[in-house]
Amino acid sequence: MLRALSVAAAARRPLRLPRPCAPPGPLLLGLLCRQVRAAAGSTGAEHGSVLKTPKGTRYHHPVQMALRERLFRTVVSCFKRHGAAAIDTPVLELREMLMEKYGDNSRLIYELQDQGGELLALRYDLTVPFARYLAMNKITNIKRYHIAKVYRRDNPAMTRGRYREFYQCVNDRRILNGVFAICGIPESKLSTMCSTLDKLDKMPWEEVRSEMVGEKGLSPEAADRIGEYVQLHGGLDLIEQLLQDPKLSQNKLAKEGLGDMKLLFEYLTLFGITGKVSFDLSLARGLDYYTGVIYEAVLLQQENDHGEESVSVGSVAGGGRYDGLVGMFDPKGRKVPCVGVSIGIERIFSILEHRMKASGEKVRMTETQVMVATPQKHLLSARLKLISELWDVGIKAEMMYRKDPKLLKQLQYCEDMGIPLVAIIGEQELKDGVVKLRDVATREEVDIPREQLAAEIRRRLVP
Amino acid sequence: MLRALSVAAAARRPLRLPRPCAPPGPLLLGLLCRQVRAAAGSTGAEHGSVLKTPKGTRYHHPVQMALRERLFRTVVSCFKRHGAAAIDTPVLELREMLMEKYGDNSRLIYELQDQGGELLALRYDLTVPFARYLAMNKITNIKRYHIAKVYRRDNPAMTRGRYREFYQCVNDRRILNGVFAICGIPESKLSTMCSTLDKLDKMPWEEVRSEMVGEKGLSPEAADRIGEYVQLHGGLDLIEQLLQDPKLSQNKLAKEGLGDMKLLFEYLTLFGITGKVSFDLSLARGLDYYTGVIYEAVLLQQENDHGEESVSVGSVAGGGRYDGLVGMFDPKGRKVPCVGVSIGIERIFSILEHRMKASGEKVRMTETQVMVATPQKHLLSARLKLISELWDVGIKAEMMYRKDPKLLKQLQYCEDMGIPLVAIIGEQELKDGVVKLRDVATREEVDIPREQLAAEIRRRLVP
Repeated sequence: MLRALSVAAAARRPLRLPRPCAPPGPLLLGLLCRQVRAAAGSTGAEHGSVLKTPKGTRYHHPVQMALRERLFRTVVSCFKRHGAAAIDTPVLELREMLMEKYGDNSRLIYELQDQGGELLALRYDLTVPFARYLAMNKITNIKRYHIAKVYRRDNPAMTRGRYREFYQCVNDRRILNGVFAICGIPESKLSTMCSTLDKLDKMPWEEVRSEMVGEKGLSPEAADRIGEYVQLHGGLDLIEQLLQDPKLSQNKLAKEGLGDMKLLFEYLTLFGITGKVSFDLSLARGLDYYTGVIYEAVLLQQENDHGEESVSVGSVAGGGRYDGLVGMFDPKGRKVPCVGVSIGIERIFSILEHRMKASGEKVRMTETQVMVATPQKHLLSARLKLISELWDVGIKAEMMYRKDPKLLKQLQYCEDMGIPLVAIIGEQELKDGVVKLRDVATREEVDIPREQLAAEIRRRLVP
Repeated sequence: MLRALSVAAAARRPLRLPRPCAPPGPLLLGLLCRQVRAAAGSTGAEHGSVLKTPKGTRYHHPVQMALRERLFRTVVSCFKRHGAAAIDTPVLELREMLMEKYGDNSRLIYELQDQGGELLALRYDLTVPFARYLAMNKITNIKRYHIAKVYRRDNPAMTRGRYREFYQCVNDRRILNGVFAICGIPESKLSTMCSTLDKLDKMPWEEVRSEMVGEKGLSPEAADRIGEYVQLHGGLDLIEQLLQDPKLSQNKLAKEGLGDMKLLFEYLTLFGITGKVSFDLSLARGLDYYTGVIYEAVLLQQENDHGEESVSVGSVAGGGRYDGLVGMFDPKGRKVPCVGVSIGIERIFSILEHRMKASGEKVRMTETQVMVATPQKHLLSARLKLISELWDVGIKAEMMYRKDPKLLKQLQYCEDMGIPLVAIIGEQELKDGVVKLRDVATREEVDIPREQLAAEIRRRLVP
């Protein structure tokens, strides 16, 4: 069972370009992290009450949440840099609406019990609700992003590893359909051929070929013809070559697709990112609703010590053009062309967590700037007054909840939590109207006039 | 049906103080907003597909999302200022775990269909999952906040109005139980008496009294004795008075509660916020798990033109101490004292939206800093190159997706979206190596050397 947290973006005809935001990969991968305790799905004995969470679900502890916040901030800042606006749609959907849209995958939808009223289900992705949103609100132009959880009754096997490099591969459904057509595949078999072809990233061509011939009943010759095309990948050169291909260039769909792919590569050249993108004729994508360009961002595993080559460890983002989906919701069937990308946040988060384990970087779980501490007894009121002053001017401050904590304990707490400063007030400081400001790292202490404390804390913590 | 988005905070024994964060009200109410289109729950005809969302659910449009982001930023910054860390727990819970915890309210829980595997339900609140989190992870010390949706099969009637003022009322379950005890109410009736008393904010004492006597079978004398207490409210004076009350001061529970209430008011005095908090003996709170101090933040409706007095329009936050809940999950029944507050984000958001309607302030739905525009045809490549340069250095930039948009259209888009600057490149600018930077508000235009453009945009947009 997978509780995927998905970030999706979609834009209307952004220059026919799959890019409402810059490629997410390098940004996301720029993060460094440190070890966290793995979240337990189920543990411990019971005391009259259930002491576990459902299978496949997990807790996120404070350090993990701090890391997630970084990740989201990175993704959202990228969306905002490209002018995107946020929307939100309900988690609960009418069962009927969902059941029609995902083909075979409908069996993975979580359905709610009939408790009276409407029959409900949990959303399966963000694309179908978005298409309905556009149709209901008669929106034909929007650059939107949407960060939300989606629910699938899945059994995901999460691969983990060290990841170094990432690239995007691109294809166009029309090119793929053109290839199938000139190889003599009837239209009724296109969808099932796509899902077989989709396995090419996990198994060699020979196995895919034998599934096509054995299970799907293709002639060995047709399979070989397909094989000649789908094993191709490259850039502008390959596009030019295929545009000259005597058979493929005769196919209307393939020609359209190749023309748009050429335009896309021209834009990629202007953006200076052709090196990151590979035109890959085997890319098929599972879902039925794509109508044009399709793409995936793939992470490569870092070379190991034996100098072996990088291997792909899987897709962390993917999407494409779906010009027909909104029309399915419009009363008059009016089409709204759409193109979007979905980022697999949970997958990227897993990779980041793994990296935390490997590196030593400390991620703070809070943002506290200063600890308000006292060195003697009977100073609780003094602490309360000082911390209240600091809070009132926006300083992030904490104090221990004991009445008379030992100074060493208070300092230890700062070490544990990564709090950089301590504001100490004892009897002498109260008399003198000052606060002793201690730097936790250097252990240096300076008396600061109380009214200048907040300014001094701000000055010291300038990034 | 209510899809409440709840923000909850809980801390271990924060000085026996219901305050892991400063009072949310004044902060939240400091926001100004403007009109948005009301979200439609269901609309339009159908075209072979369901064109509505489930009852009680709603869309959040871009302007609403921008407003929500502000609201969350305010709340989260308050939590962080007080040293809180975030956690997350699963939306799906084992049905069994939830069913035992909410008494009568269990009928409002959304249950999932049995599709094989575990029996699941959607979480009803954030407190019970938090208590289980503590027990499972053996955590006895944490200041946590948690922002997440909770699900209830409810029929909320949302009151809207203009709100001006807010205050918090406080009580202690032990004081209330003490009052009931000295008025001769048997312990078995405490829970049902609490829920009757809880209605005192919506109906006058006479009606509550007659429910106690009529439905709950109390003697008129006992009801009158209760009435004498629960209609009291005040501050330190009232606490002192009750500590002298010959009957109440003999009750062990009430005495403990009054002692802690006195301490609380001493802390409130140190924080300088006694004026915002009223000790109110009628406050009961519905849920069973509270064991000590309980409180609510209440909004008062603004006086109308006829000079009528402020009236309460309802609670926007509430919580209390629940020292027994974690022990229910611990294998050995070990208690972890907890105190927390839950903020009714959806309610506050409704109020903010209403305020947007009333005021004229414009909320931008994007953060775009500059529009990249061209005044002549055949300059798409020039736009793409320039916008790519700006994106690469972190400037938030947009351009129109047409090949050759009219300059007026590009400027109009800036007006509509509140984009403050336009970077115009025509043939002359390309020759001269400059960009014409236009201020949308003043219409002033200045030529800027291209390599200085990003710096100039940043300089102009310093807040």
